[in-house]
Amino acid sequence: MTDLPSRRCLAVVLAAGEGTRMRSAIPKVLHAVAGRSMLGHVLAAVADVGVDGVAVVIGPGRHDVAQAAVKACPTARIFVQAERRGTAHAVLAARDALDEGYDDVLVLYADVPLIEADTLRRMRSALAEGAAVVALGFEAADPTGYGRLITQEGALTAIREHKDANAAERAVTLCNSGLMAIDGRKALDLLGRVRPHNAQGEFYLTDAVEIACADGERCAAPIASEAEVMGVNDRVQLAAAEAVAQIRLREAAMRAGVTMQAPDTVHLSFDTRLGRDIVIEPHVVIGPGVAVADGAVLHSFSHLEGATVAAGANVGPYARLRPGAKLAAGAKVGNFVEIKNADVGEGAKISHLSYIGDASVGAGANIGAGTITCNYDGFNKAHTAIGAGAFIGSNSALVAPVTIGAGAFVGSGSVITDDVPADALALARGRQFVKEGWAKDFRAARAKPK
Amino acid sequence: MTDLPSRRCLAVVLAAGEGTRMRSAIPKVLHAVAGRSMLGHVLAAVADVGVDGVAVVIGPGRHDVAQAAVKACPTARIFVQAERRGTAHAVLAARDALDEGYDDVLVLYADVPLIEADTLRRMRSALAEGAAVVALGFEAADPTGYGRLITQEGALTAIREHKDANAAERAVTLCNSGLMAIDGRKALDLLGRVRPHNAQGEFYLTDAVEIACADGERCAAPIASEAEVMGVNDRVQLAAAEAVAQIRLREAAMRAGVTMQAPDTVHLSFDTRLGRDIVIEPHVVIGPGVAVADGAVLHSFSHLEGATVAAGANVGPYARLRPGAKLAAGAKVGNFVEIKNADVGEGAKISHLSYIGDASVGAGANIGAGTITCNYDGFNKAHTAIGAGAFIGSNSALVAPVTIGAGAFVGSGSVITDDVPADALALARGRQFVKEGWAKDFRAARAKPK
Amino acid sequence: MTDLPSRRCLAVVLAAGEGTRMRSAIPKVLHAVAGRSMLGHVLAAVADVGVDGVAVVIGPGRHDVAQAAVKACPTARIFVQAERRGTAHAVLAARDALDEGYDDVLVLYADVPLIEADTLRRMRSALAEGAAVVALGFEAADPTGYGRLITQEGALTAIREHKDANAAERAVTLCNSGLMAIDGRKALDLLGRVRPHNAQGEFYLTDAVEIACADGERCAAPIASEAEVMGVNDRVQLAAAEAVAQIRLREAAMRAGVTMQAPDTVHLSFDTRLGRDIVIEPHVVIGPGVAVADGAVLHSFSHLEGATVAAGANVGPYARLRPGAKLAAGAKVGNFVEIKNADVGEGAKISHLSYIGDASVGAGANIGAGTITCNYDGFNKAHTAIGAGAFIGSNSALVAPVTIGAGAFVGSGSVITDDVPADALALARGRQFVKEGWAKDFRAARAKPK
Repeated sequence: MTDLPSRRCLAVVLAAGEGTRMRSAIPKVLHAVAGRSMLGHVLAAVADVGVDGVAVVIGPGRHDVAQAAVKACPTARIFVQAERRGTAHAVLAARDALDEGYDDVLVLYADVPLIEADTLRRMRSALAEGAAVVALGFEAADPTGYGRLITQEGALTAIREHKDANAAERAVTLCNSGLMAIDGRKALDLLGRVRPHNAQGEFYLTDAVEIACADGERCAAPIASEAEVMGVNDRVQLAAAEAVAQIRLREAAMRAGVTMQAPDTVHLSFDTRLGRDIVIEPHVVIGPGVAVADGAVLHSFSHLEGATVAAGANVGPYARLRPGAKLAAGAKVGNFVEIKNADVGEGAKISHLSYIGDASVGAGANIGAGTITCNYDGFNKAHTAIGAGAFIGSNSALVAPVTIGAGAFVGSGSVITDDVPADALALARGRQFVKEGWAKDFRAARAKPK
Repeated sequence: MTDLPSRRCLAVVLAAGEGTRMRSAIPKVLHAVAGRSMLGHVLAAVADVGVDGVAVVIGPGRHDVAQAAVKACPTARIFVQAERRGTAHAVLAARDALDEGYDDVLVLYADVPLIEADTLRRMRSALAEGAAVVALGFEAADPTGYGRLITQEGALTAIREHKDANAAERAVTLCNSGLMAIDGRKALDLLGRVRPHNAQGEFYLTDAVEIACADGERCAAPIASEAEVMGVNDRVQLAAAEAVAQIRLREAAMRAGVTMQAPDTVHLSFDTRLGRDIVIEPHVVIGPGVAVADGAVLHSFSHLEGATVAAGANVGPYARLRPGAKLAAGAKVGNFVEIKNADVGEGAKISHLSYIGDASVGAGANIGAGTITCNYDGFNKAHTAIGAGAFIGSNSALVAPVTIGAGAFVGSGSVITDDVPADALALARGRQFVKEGWAKDFRAARAKPK
Repeated sequence: MTDLPSRRCLAVVLAAGEGTRMRSAIPKVLHAVAGRSMLGHVLAAVADVGVDGVAVVIGPGRHDVAQAAVKACPTARIFVQAERRGTAHAVLAARDALDEGYDDVLVLYADVPLIEADTLRRMRSALAEGAAVVALGFEAADPTGYGRLITQEGALTAIREHKDANAAERAVTLCNSGLMAIDGRKALDLLGRVRPHNAQGEFYLTDAVEIACADGERCAAPIASEAEVMGVNDRVQLAAAEAVAQIRLREAAMRAGVTMQAPDTVHLSFDTRLGRDIVIEPHVVIGPGVAVADGAVLHSFSHLEGATVAAGANVGPYARLRPGAKLAAGAKVGNFVEIKNADVGEGAKISHLSYIGDASVGAGANIGAGTITCNYDGFNKAHTAIGAGAFIGSNSALVAPVTIGAGAFVGSGSVITDDVPADALALARGRQFVKEGWAKDFRAARAKPK
């Protein structure tokens, strides 16, 4: 590819669509794919390709979209498209940015979330090689309804809307994704010459191709996969985009050394970091902010979010790691266990039916089944510290703030309200009392009324 | 379409098949798809299309099928096909109903469960437009083995069994679904003239087409999708029908404003009611009788059945809502929590590892981790009432019948057997006792024998 | 098929591949499909077809592979291929075995795990019918890259590598799976005449075909499905093989009378035994060593491994049955319950949030929610015996070793450390204490500091 760094680039991200078909109070472009908003995905691809300016075009009053855009890309400038009058009109809402003398202008759509940086680089390369306008194409399995890319000897000569296409043009399967790259020195001129297209007076970006060709300019049409340029207009399409994103994430993980017996049932996030020789069993959900190191096993039905799992740790089945859960090497968190904001030390075991929140568990500690850290009194959260090698008997409640010393032993069924010194035994439970024959009498009495 | 309401219609549902290939003690047509028996689906489509009479033809001794039919459609009349002698013979088992002067007769199969009311309306319209016999066709991806619909100038002229078809007929891909509509005034006559077909002396409904054509009548062949007329003969096909039903349910939900990140892993029921801007995370199972209101979130690994979830409520992950669970607006039921026959008040929280059964939980109450309502003594179930704003400490057992007053506070690890007044504190647990150094000695003693 | 038993057969299993693309510390052929190593699958197919000798060819230093091979097939002899010089060279590493006068020699690959015994029988039959070399072919959806099987009048005449093929040969879609059967009396001679093929001096097994043909021998090419001969080189392919294995297992189960509403979400193991009229709901994982009898129901989100479930038992949702869990007829293990090394008696119920390990539960016993057997003291595991008809109140801890007599009743929230006689009541919990108004004061005090 041509060297791009020497060229200055502006990315214009169109995010003004209303998304009525989403039937949602949330703006369309803020709906998430693989744990990140669609807008966030597009801005991430833009950041990856390396640009010098980012303009996000939003609809009037969409402060939520503006806020999300600036959060994802602090240097983004926000432009408002006051009326909805077509894509060329939308790009021209960012006129002030276009006017700043960029070499390359990329036009992207916040509802086309799967676009990859490499494809954007190819589009910029085509500009660098002399094209005035670059329209990204894709081979459509069923081209009905799409604009067709009309080419002659490899050069793009026009984009023909389906309804305006003749029979020969309809036979073309190379379709218009909508994404475009324009020579930055010509962009304002070309877009300014687009004429309204229909009764609604909409100005279409696609017209820039024929205008440029009429000027004797060259236009180009690099090709992406249909999946990469999939647009999202309703939640069925959102689910389809999610499926493509998941396949990408899973395959990358598997190729890097992660075993998934049933990849279709494993859900990853855009930022999931996975080491080598990890096993992820069927039915595991990984939300944002998770890192899992080499050799760890995530058993079925586990759910992780904002959690760190060190090498060789053993998670699940049915483990829930919430934000701030940090498992050290070889730690084990077993079934029906929830960990939140807690450090679990090397080799420590929390095997069954426990809630460990706002806590630290020392190396080698053994937390019995049914142990609960009582971290909340209705007003404040408090911390539980469990020392290295401590043994917490089953069904115990540890009322925070409380410290269990290293090597201490808590008897089953205890409610621990005071600190336990290291190596001590603590018990806090009733004494056993037996009444012989009672159950027999009870059954007889209960059986009578029938 | 032609106006149907003025025409009287009889639906004949054939449900006499033995279903040997199901390898089941349960009659084939009572196996479920999306939470309702196949027979129930067909009767629901019939009810939807609006008919004046329903006849269900069952095999001898199949009281269970009769019972299910009448339960699903109280006006259904049951007819028994004493011997298995073909589809025409089966329809004639309902002779008494056919004899009552209907305009339209629909013939359906209880093991073709995905038929939609709109398709039945199209079949009736064809009768209303003058056809004597209407055979519902489908374009088969692989027609081998199916009867072919032979047409001339758009009119149906014959149904040819695969084995009887010549090469030209075998090239036809329009196949016979088996579903039929017959002019009610001609049905008995036409069916009465069907002749036995093979060594077993079976009478085939399909012959009615050629008989009618020979009489100079017109026959028609509207078309349905192959999936809609899929028959179920074994459990692999049952799973295939379930898959189609689930896709229909999921897509309808998504188009109406429900987000599903992984629709393939979400299982709905025929009667699931879902509002707008609901999120259903991967791996959620919804059984019959569930309604979820706007803005609620169903996190991964949740399982709902007979439950009501109000607006903005938060369910799971790993929440099990059993019949009678009613979550008010903004309520939260978290991980490893089971709710049965219980009202959970507005904004109340039951976040972890609890069983709440036969209970009411007041608005804003906070139920600590590991709380269990002891609702069963081996003989009877009893009720637990928890007042608004009450705080139940973790690992508590509430022995029903018992009332916790509004604003009361139950200490962690308590076993509550008596009512707690409003705003009171209740504790019921042992005092903490510490024995210094005990754990060290214990470890030394245990380590010795090795 | 020709009678095979009279012919002596040697299976040579090539297991020397390095599997770099797996990116794993575990040798490729020990990665698992459906709960058994790929090598184990191939050795099982070999055992099923009935052979007289098994030779496994491994890479230098691969003791782990040798050990696994001998464990799966105690009579297997291990040969080491010192250098990697092609498939013919690998087979010749087993020269000592080939020299023992077998009639049939089968060459298999430990990373082609889905091969079925019936296919191996067909290959042997072709030898029995006079072929000298039999190459197993498959019709490739996309043959690019595969060696093509060149046939003339039904006989195999050559195997042409893709890169060496002319246009006509590239149009052939019948491809070489790599699996081969060779006349045992000719194998050493044929393989000895294979010449090195490329710069690396590799000797290719495929050359045996042309050599045999040049001798005037007949070669044959029976056909398998592409899925059956799929090779595994990375973890994406491993997942693909797993998917095929799972489809086989599920379909066999369904055809035998198991209902799966969503078979794609049910994961079985190579040795899963399932009875008739079992229902497996969506999202169930069954590891190795599980048997489930007629009429049992496995509800969603259940996880079984090394467990036995008798007729009519009810498992889950969210039940985890670990090795040694044995459920008698009609037993019920409900949500968030873990059973390990425990017998659960006829009709006994453990419905919620419990851990039952190293225990026996008598017939008809009722184990309340939150019951935990405290089977571990940090050093040893001990046993809990619960008698028939006993009733364990919710949230109880049973500190093993301990015996609860038949018909005994344990009060909710008890910590039981001593044996409870039959029919007795045992309580071990604190008395309830109430402080009126405390919660109100507490809230007032907590609210102040804000």
